[in-house]
Amino acid sequence: MQFSSQLLENAVNEFAKLPGIGKKTALRLVLHLVKQDETLVAHFSNTIAKMRNEIKFCNRCYNISDTVTCNICSNPMRQQNTICVVENIRDVIAIENTQQFSGLYHVLGGVISPLDGLGPEQLTIEALVNRIQNEAIEEVIFALNPNIQGDTTIYYIGRMLKETNVKITTIARGIAFGGELEFADEMTLAKSISNRITVDHYISN
Amino acid sequence: MQFSSQLLENAVNEFAKLPGIGKKTALRLVLHLVKQDETLVAHFSNTIAKMRNEIKFCNRCYNISDTVTCNICSNPMRQQNTICVVENIRDVIAIENTQQFSGLYHVLGGVISPLDGLGPEQLTIEALVNRIQNEAIEEVIFALNPNIQGDTTIYYIGRMLKETNVKITTIARGIAFGGELEFADEMTLAKSISNRITVDHYISN
Repeated sequence: MQFSSQLLENAVNEFAKLPGIGKKTALRLVLHLVKQDETLVAHFSNTIAKMRNEIKFCNRCYNISDTVTCNICSNPMRQQNTICVVENIRDVIAIENTQQFSGLYHVLGGVISPLDGLGPEQLTIEALVNRIQNEAIEEVIFALNPNIQGDTTIYYIGRMLKETNVKITTIARGIAFGGELEFADEMTLAKSISNRITVDHYISN
Repeated sequence: MQFSSQLLENAVNEFAKLPGIGKKTALRLVLHLVKQDETLVAHFSNTIAKMRNEIKFCNRCYNISDTVTCNICSNPMRQQNTICVVENIRDVIAIENTQQFSGLYHVLGGVISPLDGLGPEQLTIEALVNRIQNEAIEEVIFALNPNIQGDTTIYYIGRMLKETNVKITTIARGIAFGGELEFADEMTLAKSISNRITVDHYISN
């Protein structure tokens, strides 16, 4: 694509570096900004730069935070004896949106995946084990994506926690709402049968 | 969507103001930036702010430009007696990419569309007529989108140019490459027959 303006071209190239944004979309976004008031665009760019400069990762759970300790960890109303272990920040947001969990989180920063060069040292596993040993934790809920890497990570951490008294659980795997039995894969269907729940329990939740 | 960080939320809201970007996509973009180096993100935001602050519209053709007069208008190698009239900057980029046009442009900033509150006064029509009267222009090519608003604009400007000697043309409308005759609408097919061209002419181009 040829541009008659270097400024335009630079801005388009910057937007096109973002994931899922190609040159054409980038051009559309930049031309939208050209039409906006200067102060609005200054506000846009300042907000982004400020976010990147000032954002922190919570020193306890590694969630994204404005402060040294995030507002979930520092909230005394949250259940302090339960940790939900997730892969990344997006999972925290997804679970928070359900409003069904009132404990604490721990963000691993990924799952063990040797093919991607991610070993236990690259994740916050050591910090998690320290928390469990020092913070009177009673239950650790693994909310990882159901795949081999996720299961490996659960197994790895589970072994490290063998000697502690902590209860280890994982979120239920089964047929999703709106899903159809006949199209479910065998593994999911098998798990949903072997991990069946009593109807009383199902209805009361 | 609930965020544990105000900084994150502000940045997501800014991205979500862009056209075609929803909250989920905005979050994905912001989390991508969080992972990037601070200097890269500063470069991103500076480039956008600088672009908006310094970008100009050419004082001759209203194309986007880094300088008072754009580099197409100030290029002495371009044919100075032909103006291609387009609706917006994106059309200039599209035509430039074909490398088939070596004249000058004039960006109208839209087409006459009373329903959208766009009358001739909101467009750069007066400036176009002035250019044609003052700049030894021999041909004006209308490259507007083929719809009622585009045709109205051509008709309106054409009437203003009646007393000048300038040749007025419009880009060909017909069956697009890869299109199929049987699926073409009647109007396009009718135009493509009445405006047929000799094969010699077709092949030599």
